[in-house]
Amino acid sequence: MDSIALIGMVSIIMAGFTTSIGCMFPAIGQGKAVSAALESIAQQPDAAPTVTRTLFVGLAMIESTAIYCFVVSMILIFANPFWNHFISN
Amino acid sequence: MDSIALIGMVSIIMAGFTTSIGCMFPAIGQGKAVSAALESIAQQPDAAPTVTRTLFVGLAMIESTAIYCFVVSMILIFANPFWNHFISN
Amino acid sequence: MDSIALIGMVSIIMAGFTTSIGCMFPAIGQGKAVSAALESIAQQPDAAPTVTRTLFVGLAMIESTAIYCFVVSMILIFANPFWNHFISN
Amino acid sequence: MDSIALIGMVSIIMAGFTTSIGCMFPAIGQGKAVSAALESIAQQPDAAPTVTRTLFVGLAMIESTAIYCFVVSMILIFANPFWNHFISN
Amino acid sequence: MDSIALIGMVSIIMAGFTTSIGCMFPAIGQGKAVSAALESIAQQPDAAPTVTRTLFVGLAMIESTAIYCFVVSMILIFANPFWNHFISN
Amino acid sequence: MDSIALIGMVSIIMAGFTTSIGCMFPAIGQGKAVSAALESIAQQPDAAPTVTRTLFVGLAMIESTAIYCFVVSMILIFANPFWNHFISN
Amino acid sequence: MDSIALIGMVSIIMAGFTTSIGCMFPAIGQGKAVSAALESIAQQPDAAPTVTRTLFVGLAMIESTAIYCFVVSMILIFANPFWNHFISN
Amino acid sequence: MDSIALIGMVSIIMAGFTTSIGCMFPAIGQGKAVSAALESIAQQPDAAPTVTRTLFVGLAMIESTAIYCFVVSMILIFANPFWNHFISN
Amino acid sequence: MDSIALIGMVSIIMAGFTTSIGCMFPAIGQGKAVSAALESIAQQPDAAPTVTRTLFVGLAMIESTAIYCFVVSMILIFANPFWNHFISN
Amino acid sequence: MDSIALIGMVSIIMAGFTTSIGCMFPAIGQGKAVSAALESIAQQPDAAPTVTRTLFVGLAMIESTAIYCFVVSMILIFANPFWNHFISN
Amino acid sequence: MDSIALIGMVSIIMAGFTTSIGCMFPAIGQGKAVSAALESIAQQPDAAPTVTRTLFVGLAMIESTAIYCFVVSMILIFANPFWNHFISN
Amino acid sequence: MDSIALIGMVSIIMAGFTTSIGCMFPAIGQGKAVSAALESIAQQPDAAPTVTRTLFVGLAMIESTAIYCFVVSMILIFANPFWNHFISN
Amino acid sequence: MDSIALIGMVSIIMAGFTTSIGCMFPAIGQGKAVSAALESIAQQPDAAPTVTRTLFVGLAMIESTAIYCFVVSMILIFANPFWNHFISN
Amino acid sequence: MDSIALIGMVSIIMAGFTTSIGCMFPAIGQGKAVSAALESIAQQPDAAPTVTRTLFVGLAMIESTAIYCFVVSMILIFANPFWNHFISN
Repeated sequence: MDSIALIGMVSIIMAGFTTSIGCMFPAIGQGKAVSAALESIAQQPDAAPTVTRTLFVGLAMIESTAIYCFVVSMILIFANPFWNHFISN
Repeated sequence: MDSIALIGMVSIIMAGFTTSIGCMFPAIGQGKAVSAALESIAQQPDAAPTVTRTLFVGLAMIESTAIYCFVVSMILIFANPFWNHFISN
Repeated sequence: MDSIALIGMVSIIMAGFTTSIGCMFPAIGQGKAVSAALESIAQQPDAAPTVTRTLFVGLAMIESTAIYCFVVSMILIFANPFWNHFISN
Repeated sequence: MDSIALIGMVSIIMAGFTTSIGCMFPAIGQGKAVSAALESIAQQPDAAPTVTRTLFVGLAMIESTAIYCFVVSMILIFANPFWNHFISN
Repeated sequence: MDSIALIGMVSIIMAGFTTSIGCMFPAIGQGKAVSAALESIAQQPDAAPTVTRTLFVGLAMIESTAIYCFVVSMILIFANPFWNHFISN
Repeated sequence: MDSIALIGMVSIIMAGFTTSIGCMFPAIGQGKAVSAALESIAQQPDAAPTVTRTLFVGLAMIESTAIYCFVVSMILIFANPFWNHFISN
Repeated sequence: MDSIALIGMVSIIMAGFTTSIGCMFPAIGQGKAVSAALESIAQQPDAAPTVTRTLFVGLAMIESTAIYCFVVSMILIFANPFWNHFISN
Repeated sequence: MDSIALIGMVSIIMAGFTTSIGCMFPAIGQGKAVSAALESIAQQPDAAPTVTRTLFVGLAMIESTAIYCFVVSMILIFANPFWNHFISN
Repeated sequence: MDSIALIGMVSIIMAGFTTSIGCMFPAIGQGKAVSAALESIAQQPDAAPTVTRTLFVGLAMIESTAIYCFVVSMILIFANPFWNHFISN
Repeated sequence: MDSIALIGMVSIIMAGFTTSIGCMFPAIGQGKAVSAALESIAQQPDAAPTVTRTLFVGLAMIESTAIYCFVVSMILIFANPFWNHFISN
Repeated sequence: MDSIALIGMVSIIMAGFTTSIGCMFPAIGQGKAVSAALESIAQQPDAAPTVTRTLFVGLAMIESTAIYCFVVSMILIFANPFWNHFISN
Repeated sequence: MDSIALIGMVSIIMAGFTTSIGCMFPAIGQGKAVSAALESIAQQPDAAPTVTRTLFVGLAMIESTAIYCFVVSMILIFANPFWNHFISN
Repeated sequence: MDSIALIGMVSIIMAGFTTSIGCMFPAIGQGKAVSAALESIAQQPDAAPTVTRTLFVGLAMIESTAIYCFVVSMILIFANPFWNHFISN
Repeated sequence: MDSIALIGMVSIIMAGFTTSIGCMFPAIGQGKAVSAALESIAQQPDAAPTVTRTLFVGLAMIESTAIYCFVVSMILIFANPFWNHFISN
């Protein structure tokens, strides 16, 4: 079992791990935010535009943490400096 | 146990792991959002169109985190650069 | 213990794991959604058609995450590219 | 310990694991849905037919995730392609 | 430690595991459903027949997931195809 | 360490495990059901007979899941086909 | 380390494990039931006899699951068929 | 490391484990019951004798599960049949 | 590493484990009971003597489970029959 | 690695473990009791002396479980009979 | 397996771990904050500008903890002093 | 790896473990107590002196459990009898 | 695997671990504080300046615990005395 | 792998562990306290000075537990007596 196989294995493992674990809680947070938005609209229909606008900003902020994870995962698969170091040797 | 078998095994494991773990919480988040939508419609039937529209945007945002995981999983099965590196050697 | 047996074992393990873990939370999410739908109908019987329609869309969205897992599981059993690679060698 | 015994062992383990883990949460989800249905009937007896009908559709949807797991489990016991591959060799 | 002993051990382990784990949550779900039924009867005694009837259908649905597990467990003890394969060799 | 000792050990372990784990949640479920029954009687003393009758049916259903586990446990101790196979050899 | 010591060790471990784990949740369930009974008596003192009687039946049902575990534990210590098999050889 | 030391070690471990784990939840259950009793007395001081009497019966029932564990623990320390078997050999 | 050192180590480990784990939940239970007592006194100052008396009986019952653990722990340190067996040999 | 070093290591480990684990939940229990006391004083300022007195008795009871753990920990560090046995040999 | 491969593997593992674990709870915290903001707007539409401004400051504070993790992760991948030390040797 | 290094390592590990684990829950308990104090002051500003005084006594009691852990930790670092025994040999 | 590689690996692991674990709960705490601030503003818009000021002090206090972790993490990467000791030898 | 490297590794691990674990719950506790303070100010703006003063005392108490952990962590990195013992030998 040489070094390059190990680096490959570890990269695959962490790519999957990072995306799957990192996407769990943003989904919960977004569910909570959407849920509160819907209840707010039901309670105060006149405030719907303000609610919707604030909701979208919030969803984008929460989505950003999921995207950090996705970015790290893509880096590990397609632009991994450690892998490049080993296969270029 | 050679390198290629190891890379194959790890890819299979992470493909299943990523999808199964990454799909858990979006389902909860969507359940929460749908649940809030239904209660909002019951409470304020006149706001149903606004509620429904906001719900669909929210569901799409939450689904996106599940889809990130599914995409990573498909990449690991069908477009895995590490696997391609080893079987082309 | 040769490579092909290992790939077979890992495929069996992940097929079961993916389906069982991935189907857990959609069931909870659907239970929550159905539960909210029933309470909404009880509270506002006139809104039953809207509630029911929104419920079915939501259930389909939640079911989709379970189906992603089932699909990955079926791919691992019946269309596994790694297994095919090894048994064709 | 030869390959065929290993494949057999893993199949037994995953058949039990998939069914037992995969049936846990649908039971909770159904309990929640039934519970909400009963409270809805108590609160609004006139809506009982609508509630009951929606309940049954919901229970069927939730049961479907348990059935996916049961199906995978039966496939692993009685129609396992990996097992067939090894005993036909 | 030969193959047949291993298959036997694994079958015993999974038979117990499947039943014990798989029966946990149906018990909770049924407790929740029964609990809701009793509160519904107390709140609306006139709806007792409808409540009771819906309760029994629901309990049967929930019991079904426990029974799937019990069935898998019995198959592993008394009709295990892998065990039969090894003792017939 | 021969096969028969292993089968014996595993049977002892699973007999205890199955009963202890499988009896945990029915106890909670029954506690919940009894608790709801008592509150229902306090709230609506006239409905006591209906409540009590429904309670007993429910307790029997919940107890059944504990009994499945106890039965599996007794089978593993006193009517274990794998043990019989090995001691008859 | 011969077989008889192993069987003895495993029996001791499972005897303690079964009783300790199996007695945990009945205690919670009974606490819940007693707690509900006391609140019911406080709320409706006239229903005290009915409440008390129902409580005792419920406590007995819950205690039964703890007793199953205690019985299995005593069987493993004092009437263990596997231990008897080995010391009679 | 001979058999008798192993049996001794395992007995010590399980004696401590059984008592410590088995006494955890009865304490919670009793805390819950006492707590409900005090609130009931505060709410309905006239029912104090009935509440207190029911409380003591309930506490005794809950204490019984802790005592089962303590009994098993004492048996393992002072009347352990497996230990006696080995030291009498 | 001889037997006597092992017995000593295991006794130290279980003495600490039993006390620390076994004292956790009684503290919670007592906190709950004291908390309910204080709220009851605030709600019904006239019932303070009855509340206090019932509280002390309850605290004693809960403390008893912690004392069982402390007793087992002291037995393991200062009156351990297994240790005595080995150092007297 | 001789016996005396092992006994020393185990004593250090358990001294820290016992105090840290055993002090966790009393802190929670006391926090709960103090919290209830403060709310009771706010609700019924006239009952402050009775509340305070009952609070201090309760805190002492809860502190006692933390002190059991601290005592065991000090015994293990400064009056450990097993350590004394080994260093006196 | 030489040192440089190990450092590479550990860097990959921690880069993924840090981002995925560190992004979980900020997402929850932001979901909570956004949710409270939407409910506040619904309750007091006139305070929307103050609410929104405070929300954005709060989201930035929470996001900062996620960014600390992302920064550490990027340092480990692209500016790792330990990796540089080893590849420059 | 000689005994003195092991004793040193274990002392370092337990010093950190004891402080970090033992300081977790007192922080929660104090947070709860402070939180209740603030709500009590808001509800009954006239009782502020009594509330504050009771709060400080309570915080001191809770802090005491954290200090036990800190004391054990300092003993293990700076006055460790086992370490002194080994370095004086 | 020499000492310097080990020290490097451990430093990388702990740098990531400290930041990721240590930033989890401050994010929750800040989310809770921001959430309470927004609800307070909605409930009492006139108190917004006081609320905002108190909020910022609180956020700074909570952020401080995250910063302790980030500081330790940076020390481990860029000013690690153990690493310096080894590379200067 | 000599003793000094081990002591170094363990010190690094515990420095990170102590700070990260020990800072988790104080952040929650402070979040709770700040949250209660803000709600109290919103409910009773006139009591703001008293609330703020009590809050700061409380935050300092809670911060103290985080600081204990930070202190232990700094001792382990910069004033570690075990490390000094080994490098001075």
